[in-house]
Amino acid sequence: MSPLGAPEPTVGRIALYLRCLRACQREGLQTISSYGIEQRTGISSGQVRKDLSYFGEFGKPGRGYDVSALLDRLARIMHLHVPHRVIIVGAGHLGTALAGYAGFAESRFEVAALFDNDPAKIGKQARGLEIMDVASLNEHKERLGARFGIIATPAASAQQVADLMVQAGINAILNFTPVRLRVPEGVVARNVDVAHELEVLSYFASE
Amino acid sequence: MSPLGAPEPTVGRIALYLRCLRACQREGLQTISSYGIEQRTGISSGQVRKDLSYFGEFGKPGRGYDVSALLDRLARIMHLHVPHRVIIVGAGHLGTALAGYAGFAESRFEVAALFDNDPAKIGKQARGLEIMDVASLNEHKERLGARFGIIATPAASAQQVADLMVQAGINAILNFTPVRLRVPEGVVARNVDVAHELEVLSYFASE
Repeated sequence: MSPLGAPEPTVGRIALYLRCLRACQREGLQTISSYGIEQRTGISSGQVRKDLSYFGEFGKPGRGYDVSALLDRLARIMHLHVPHRVIIVGAGHLGTALAGYAGFAESRFEVAALFDNDPAKIGKQARGLEIMDVASLNEHKERLGARFGIIATPAASAQQVADLMVQAGINAILNFTPVRLRVPEGVVARNVDVAHELEVLSYFASE
Repeated sequence: MSPLGAPEPTVGRIALYLRCLRACQREGLQTISSYGIEQRTGISSGQVRKDLSYFGEFGKPGRGYDVSALLDRLARIMHLHVPHRVIIVGAGHLGTALAGYAGFAESRFEVAALFDNDPAKIGKQARGLEIMDVASLNEHKERLGARFGIIATPAASAQQVADLMVQAGINAILNFTPVRLRVPEGVVARNVDVAHELEVLSYFASE
């Protein structure tokens, strides 16, 4: 079956398996069963087998999955077998926090540059990066070679920043504002909306 | 049908409808059709009708939904008809950014307090809040009356902070570290994992 066009919940779980397999590899495990994955991720072994079979046959009955082979295969499916460079626009508290986010390294994401439009910030350093003028994003695109962009600006600037990112060759945008971005075909945008996360929590905490 | 036990994707969409209805109310709209909701949220009218029918009968054929009535009903289902107080632990860049997050107000979330364990930060102000010692969380619980907690600490502190929150009566935790928290029955924890969001983007941007 084609690895393309997997539904989002499946992709989300594959990302979790990948993280689990990286931990297994660090611990020196050679094989892991679907039950082992269940214990580490909380995702049922039946779901694990179903998800992995979506992308091909990996496991051997009674022997489990080969950790390295499965890790390599899933990383390729997710396009996470190569490192990715990420730019962040918005050098306020959120952008600065994200520039220093420890969780990126394991997934081979590297923050390549931090941009802002505030003359008081441009040229200053944050987390070892020089804050650059967002108006110059396009000039730096060859040097940066980034396909991922994070928007950590006020909501009112989000669409304009997204447009600049698309011009500069970014085709994967993570948006921390509540704005629903308009992006051309071939560009993917995803929102992280903290109020929305609390709203969903509110429902489940009130059951 | 019982409003309890709705699957998470449904709950996520209900939160989006709620936001859409609040915008309609601000614009003075009295009624909205499922097609109107589709235009504003991008969720198909068929899905809208199916989701809303999960919680009861709201619409009138040919007339659409009454904005105020539906807003009130959905807010109650999500337990968002009353304001909620939120505490944040971790007064670094991320916690400070979240304490000033403009998106909370619309959902009637109010940040009641900001905690840290760093003596250099305790007693200082951030976003109009005094940073308090996380060790004193339990002492302040009556006064704060918060049921929601956000963890914006380094990963190594996350479980300990979650335990303190549970002791202090918090039963809904939003966790910005990649740690999978252990929480007792009756407490709900939800992770916002930025690396995971980029990983999922990576898949869809590579299709």
